[in-house]
Amino acid sequence: MKSILIRNGLIITQDETRRIIDGDMLIEGNRIAGIGKVKDSADIEIDASGQAILPGFINTHAHVAMAHLKGLLDDISLETFLEKTFVLDSGRTEKGIYNSAMLGMAEMVDSGITSFHDLYYSEDIIARAANKFGMRGFLAWVTLDEEYTTQSGSPVKNAEAFVRKKHGDLVTASVGVQGIYVASDETYLGAKDIARKYDTTMHTHLSETRKEVYGYASSHSGQRPVEHLSSIDFLNDRLIAAHSSFVTMREVRQLAKAGVKVSWNSISNCKLGTGGMPPVPEMINHGITISLGTDSNGSNNSLNMFEMMKFSSLILKSARWDPSVIGAQKILDMATRDAAASLRRKDIGVLKEGNLADITIIDTRQPNLIPVNRENIVQGIVYSANPVNVDTVIVNGRILKRRKRLIRKLPETLKENMI
Amino acid sequence: MKSILIRNGLIITQDETRRIIDGDMLIEGNRIAGIGKVKDSADIEIDASGQAILPGFINTHAHVAMAHLKGLLDDISLETFLEKTFVLDSGRTEKGIYNSAMLGMAEMVDSGITSFHDLYYSEDIIARAANKFGMRGFLAWVTLDEEYTTQSGSPVKNAEAFVRKKHGDLVTASVGVQGIYVASDETYLGAKDIARKYDTTMHTHLSETRKEVYGYASSHSGQRPVEHLSSIDFLNDRLIAAHSSFVTMREVRQLAKAGVKVSWNSISNCKLGTGGMPPVPEMINHGITISLGTDSNGSNNSLNMFEMMKFSSLILKSARWDPSVIGAQKILDMATRDAAASLRRKDIGVLKEGNLADITIIDTRQPNLIPVNRENIVQGIVYSANPVNVDTVIVNGRILKRRKRLIRKLPETLKENMI
Repeated sequence: MKSILIRNGLIITQDETRRIIDGDMLIEGNRIAGIGKVKDSADIEIDASGQAILPGFINTHAHVAMAHLKGLLDDISLETFLEKTFVLDSGRTEKGIYNSAMLGMAEMVDSGITSFHDLYYSEDIIARAANKFGMRGFLAWVTLDEEYTTQSGSPVKNAEAFVRKKHGDLVTASVGVQGIYVASDETYLGAKDIARKYDTTMHTHLSETRKEVYGYASSHSGQRPVEHLSSIDFLNDRLIAAHSSFVTMREVRQLAKAGVKVSWNSISNCKLGTGGMPPVPEMINHGITISLGTDSNGSNNSLNMFEMMKFSSLILKSARWDPSVIGAQKILDMATRDAAASLRRKDIGVLKEGNLADITIIDTRQPNLIPVNRENIVQGIVYSANPVNVDTVIVNGRILKRRKRLIRKLPETLKENMI
Repeated sequence: MKSILIRNGLIITQDETRRIIDGDMLIEGNRIAGIGKVKDSADIEIDASGQAILPGFINTHAHVAMAHLKGLLDDISLETFLEKTFVLDSGRTEKGIYNSAMLGMAEMVDSGITSFHDLYYSEDIIARAANKFGMRGFLAWVTLDEEYTTQSGSPVKNAEAFVRKKHGDLVTASVGVQGIYVASDETYLGAKDIARKYDTTMHTHLSETRKEVYGYASSHSGQRPVEHLSSIDFLNDRLIAAHSSFVTMREVRQLAKAGVKVSWNSISNCKLGTGGMPPVPEMINHGITISLGTDSNGSNNSLNMFEMMKFSSLILKSARWDPSVIGAQKILDMATRDAAASLRRKDIGVLKEGNLADITIIDTRQPNLIPVNRENIVQGIVYSANPVNVDTVIVNGRILKRRKRLIRKLPETLKENMI
């Protein structure tokens, strides 16, 4: 593997003290071998003058194999959305899932995302695609009750079979649960057992819509989903819960006490008009780690962390009538170091020696970032940047985008086979 | 001037019936000379296979000379924002205003905007910049009471002097009013007289914040700003009112009856945490024409119509708990044909023979737009596209961006002189 020396950049470390360092970065193998003044030469040299070097963004809620669904499910109610998605989602081929996953990863890398956390079936196929594309995948095989699934066989057994195997350097396998509307206690606890047995994280949809929450409560003596999952001891610090938009303060305390992490999917929630939003400031005050998730191209409809950062910050400011309710630094943390912490990883999300070389380089010389400087580069990235600024993306020490072009070209035939 | 033939594109005409045509477009001089099957050859040929040809976006509320303020005014209250802006905004030099305007236009053209509607003083300098850069400017010289202004001389007289003169092919001069908190009836009516005398449009900030509205009402026997401006007969169909976020249904009816147009600044309003939003569905039902405005880099912090379209649609869906409350086509209309109508122009915002050649060409072969096709191209542009997709921008028949690069390079020294 070729060593890479990135020269003269503005290094936004996202470390404990959020140091911003002028200097160089050396990558050897798949790791960061030096930061600051690096004298060594390397096989590949990148001049990063006028550029900012960031930890690659981490997207904590995706369904990457739905990348072909953009523009097909817009401006319709969630009920119609789910009906249409079910039809589009059933009867998919291995080739279709693989191709759509490749497309989704191409979009993510193009906009500076280096890791994604996925919830779907057939994650073995997505694992193959991730290894082929070179992107880091945290892949949660979704479980649900057998009566609801389109998976062949038992979803819980499928998930265990997936988690038990190794899937290459770039893939971390884990287990998921679709949601309380299709999962019994047995399924939830089956997933939890797998996570404990193989020491993995867990992923689920949780309290995304009002209907989900009140539908559940009305048929369960008023008990709400989080309350129920707490009562059966499902909640724990392995869990990343997507959405968590309709939760009471009592539920916030239960999530916090159990160490549950939340993936905030602001764009998807708004686009579906669900009307909810996680109580982010209260969650943060209770010590809950929050990160950002794009959700799928069906409901977002892009996999773009710049949009996620700006939109999330702004919709919260608007909802609370308070522009200072959240700052640019905290939002950037959510997209990098807090996401890594949610996935129980210390070797990504922060730029430091020894960490994995997952890096996004931002060109600050485009008009939309002039005259942002060292003092306000974080604000620039969160509020002014967009994918035109992504010059270079490196995952696991390998260059996937350089001089604003993806290295891997998607095959022309990909479009025809994404079902 | 060289003729241009754009071949084999998907032409999104935005005409009365929203026709989408596969074919060619011929530009001669500053006009569209043919659409569809065009056999002629031309001085310049552009292959638009795999690309969508759109009317250039029209940004109906900007302060382009504040482009250097990005990243300086974030996560703070509106009161602090205004205090800081006042300091940053006073004592500016001609060179600074010119340079900052050039920067703002570069950002707009980079993201496919071809016309902007500006509210500021020193619009004569901005007019020079617009002619130099080649962008179409609708420039409203702002008036306010003399006791509040930093302009030398009388703002109303300055505005008239600006409107009286010709400023070149690309500039349409008009008159503005800052807002009810700094403008007396005399100023409002002075501005209106100028607009009538020279047959121009008018531009103003209106009911942006709760404080503005209730502050006014509490010292004026409960009369609200729109009610007052209606009572003094200021409102009329020349007026484009930015924001209009805090208005009652009575005020909506007054605005509608007078023919006032609204520029919706969703991102700026949310970023400042003002908590308001124009009642868009009710305004549309009353026949009010609505368009989209970025506001300045100080409060947005980008001049990006893709962000504006997606964000506006989503925040409305979320506020109304209804994903079908507004559709992609209406949002694209706001960014093109409805904006043109607001500016009382029939020769932009729609692609048809004889109209001005203000055109944005979108590359649909990037991962974020695959596999969008003819059937869902409008959804693709509104919900999935971003500035990476802007391949070519033409204003008044002149190519300003080609193959994803701005033709005009900003001078390296620009950064140092934007005060």
